[in-house]
Amino acid sequence: MNLTDYMQRQKAWIERSLNEWLPDLQTPPTRLHDAMRYSVMAGGKRLRPILALATGELVDADPEKLIKPALALEIFHTYTLIHDDLPCMDDDDLRRGLPTAHKKFDEATAVLAGDALLTLSFEWLAEHSGQLVTELAMAGGHAGVIAGQVADLAAEKNPPDAQMLDYIHLNKTAALLRCSIRIGAIAGKAPQETLNALSSFGTDIGLAFQIIDDILDSTADTDTLGKPAGSDQEQGKTTYVDVYGIDGARERATAMYQRAMATLREVDGDTTTLEHLAQFICDRDH
Amino acid sequence: MNLTDYMQRQKAWIERSLNEWLPDLQTPPTRLHDAMRYSVMAGGKRLRPILALATGELVDADPEKLIKPALALEIFHTYTLIHDDLPCMDDDDLRRGLPTAHKKFDEATAVLAGDALLTLSFEWLAEHSGQLVTELAMAGGHAGVIAGQVADLAAEKNPPDAQMLDYIHLNKTAALLRCSIRIGAIAGKAPQETLNALSSFGTDIGLAFQIIDDILDSTADTDTLGKPAGSDQEQGKTTYVDVYGIDGARERATAMYQRAMATLREVDGDTTTLEHLAQFICDRDH
Repeated sequence: MNLTDYMQRQKAWIERSLNEWLPDLQTPPTRLHDAMRYSVMAGGKRLRPILALATGELVDADPEKLIKPALALEIFHTYTLIHDDLPCMDDDDLRRGLPTAHKKFDEATAVLAGDALLTLSFEWLAEHSGQLVTELAMAGGHAGVIAGQVADLAAEKNPPDAQMLDYIHLNKTAALLRCSIRIGAIAGKAPQETLNALSSFGTDIGLAFQIIDDILDSTADTDTLGKPAGSDQEQGKTTYVDVYGIDGARERATAMYQRAMATLREVDGDTTTLEHLAQFICDRDH
Repeated sequence: MNLTDYMQRQKAWIERSLNEWLPDLQTPPTRLHDAMRYSVMAGGKRLRPILALATGELVDADPEKLIKPALALEIFHTYTLIHDDLPCMDDDDLRRGLPTAHKKFDEATAVLAGDALLTLSFEWLAEHSGQLVTELAMAGGHAGVIAGQVADLAAEKNPPDAQMLDYIHLNKTAALLRCSIRIGAIAGKAPQETLNALSSFGTDIGLAFQIIDDILDSTADTDTLGKPAGSDQEQGKTTYVDVYGIDGARERATAMYQRAMATLREVDGDTTTLEHLAQFICDRDH
């Protein structure tokens, strides 16, 4: 398979569907809807819905029924970015090469656009089933993504050790990538054993994803990243590169990747797409 | 029936249950959990869960299954208060006689505590069914509560006319009260006709609730309200008292109340509790 073609095809489908289903600009409150669309349509790899759909393919989920939950993961992700960028959190001005929501609109609109995307993500999941709502609420709530963000903010004042760094990113990043994979698997009614294996796979590639992110932040340039390179260091964030060094961080990402691949080999069915996606995550340059 | 006793009994049950199910203070992130509990346990009438449970009684819903969705309405309401009080929105320092969340903790913690309560509300609803998630997501999202908040913020710059004032409060306040009643009705599998009647009832008492709120803000004192009296005027908010005068606003609230009661008389079953609650909403002094 050609992963680049696959990802481009999926990305196009995802963005066409987002454009179709996000609240339109003619209906009030237009400024809110404008802000929601601005941040969601700003681009990105669409990795979370792509992972959900690829996992769905593996376990024979109906893609037409999975697309809306997959999109829910993307707009949930967008909400976390909008709120994380706020002045009271990371205070970022640039995201994907564009002004962040509170810069483009205003702070109140950014908070409310985030709230609205968060709420809409559950509406879209509930169209499929209450079980998918539970999955995202648990992965994305006080014991998941938000716990990670709280620890991340605290870490700006007290530099974290290796263990705390894992706690932050297992929650802040890996939880949602793992959830994307679980949602695909649950939509296809995967047996418990498969679900467990895919969950471990998701956690490992989730953490690898973050390690690579930290490596890119310290080595790539701003144009390639679409956000200021070296911004972690500027904000006083402790990264995997700080704790393990560039080579050590790369080794750790590779170890995660290899463990993820070993887990995936235990799963029945055609795992080619997930293998390629895992490889992409650990090889990407942006 | 004695409504005061009934409300005190329900409030005690609701607060005991909230205390039991909110994330505990021993589990990290403790500061986040502390902030969530601080705002939820700060008091209040618990009107939304009380309405849901009272409606459930009317249509024979199992109260043990309805309690968690009822609590979801309360923590959703708390999330809206926390975010509305933020400096970028209404910039309020006092709520229910206590410092607001961003004053007691900090702004980032307040945003995240709101996000966490919003997310947890959907987790609690999904324990019952996906349908209840859909109800709250639609009432509370971009086309409901958030639309009301957006219009309310815009109204600080451009004073609203009577029609816009209704739009704001139909969305910002009435939508969630109506949703509370619908959730009780749906949990009891009420027939469509009953659901429609109860929805209209909810909208009318919801708007009456806001009109009374505006009247109290302009007439009661700070101690009785638990928030600064006259704060609407100070913030340049246009109220029902501004548009209709005190007597006119009272008349409008009474008309809403009477229409709500007329609608309720069409509903089969013992509507006594809902009648008393509607009366309380239109007669209250705080």
